[in-house]
Amino acid sequence: MDRGDLFIISAPSGAGKTTLCSMLLDSLDNLEFSVSHTTRSPRPHEVHGKDYFFVTEEEFERLIKEDAFLEWARVHENFYGTGRDQVLEKLSKGIDVVLDIDVQGARQVREKFPGAITIFILPPSWKVLEERLMARGSEDRERLKVRLQNALKEIEEVTNYHYTVVNDKLDLAFNQLKSIILAERQKTRRVLTSEIDLEALKPDPNSWFMA
Amino acid sequence: MDRGDLFIISAPSGAGKTTLCSMLLDSLDNLEFSVSHTTRSPRPHEVHGKDYFFVTEEEFERLIKEDAFLEWARVHENFYGTGRDQVLEKLSKGIDVVLDIDVQGARQVREKFPGAITIFILPPSWKVLEERLMARGSEDRERLKVRLQNALKEIEEVTNYHYTVVNDKLDLAFNQLKSIILAERQKTRRVLTSEIDLEALKPDPNSWFMA
Repeated sequence: MDRGDLFIISAPSGAGKTTLCSMLLDSLDNLEFSVSHTTRSPRPHEVHGKDYFFVTEEEFERLIKEDAFLEWARVHENFYGTGRDQVLEKLSKGIDVVLDIDVQGARQVREKFPGAITIFILPPSWKVLEERLMARGSEDRERLKVRLQNALKEIEEVTNYHYTVVNDKLDLAFNQLKSIILAERQKTRRVLTSEIDLEALKPDPNSWFMA
Repeated sequence: MDRGDLFIISAPSGAGKTTLCSMLLDSLDNLEFSVSHTTRSPRPHEVHGKDYFFVTEEEFERLIKEDAFLEWARVHENFYGTGRDQVLEKLSKGIDVVLDIDVQGARQVREKFPGAITIFILPPSWKVLEERLMARGSEDRERLKVRLQNALKEIEEVTNYHYTVVNDKLDLAFNQLKSIILAERQKTRRVLTSEIDLEALKPDPNSWFMA
């Protein structure tokens, strides 16, 4: 039976996760993101159903009660959640799913999917992280403070992740991230259940050399 | 402390392992093969000390007694062995080492290095394997029979390996193999001990947002 893998990618704000994730989606087949639900306001150019499902706090709470989320969390005063059905449906079709989620969500998913493959993206230094967040200019000082404090706590979680990619040079980080996905597709269990027909690897029992 | 990883690559004869391994060495930095000892005769173009250390059976037995091998085995009526010191020296310098060894040797090394990363290369089908071995034309019928019977036993070991690469199209197989090495270099333990300075990820404790 074909079955995709679940990849969890986490990073502190400013590590470049969003850019890296969209490069990944563009370059690999059979890899899809799970679109999350959120109660935060859309940023310019963000599209409902593509970037996020933008829902009200009331709708979000109803979904929690219906156990519709694989994980959900409150981050930066907003709610974020990953729909359980959407993920399971893709995996059962043999599609690899990428969850772009924070460290709290990652912990919840890891418990439900011990086979999930976890990747953490780090900035090359704290200084660079601060500079990147300030350069965005879209945050007021209080929000920036919350983001920086959260980033600090998030970075401490790196040791709970299988893989770590340091985003100093974007192209290098992207190649490293891509290698991780490609390598996981070569895990023996996966190759033997989907890529190759084991019967084709057996000789004819009447072959001359079997005597 | 920098420390390389030990990669074990095994395959039945005719899977294309030798070609893939030399492509790997050419394309990646910080990756070296461990040159094995063998009692078999050199093939044309094979160089002592580069392809193998070609030794007599008497010399090989002396090295066994001196416990100089990380693993050794008798395959196709010849002895093959991997020098322990050569491997350990490279690993301690942070160099990744590739062992191009058969399934029996792999089992011995795995016991001594539970952290070794194991990769199996499969032909796309038994039919292709037979064709490739016959096309070599360098074997008499009895040797070919031994190789085919060994290949059959070796293929059964694939499930004991972490990764599997099916060598149908050489370029594709090479990229998959390369991804495995690159991905293993992104394992969190390894990145945090060699690639990044954890101190650089900590903010100044007097930063404005720490208040």
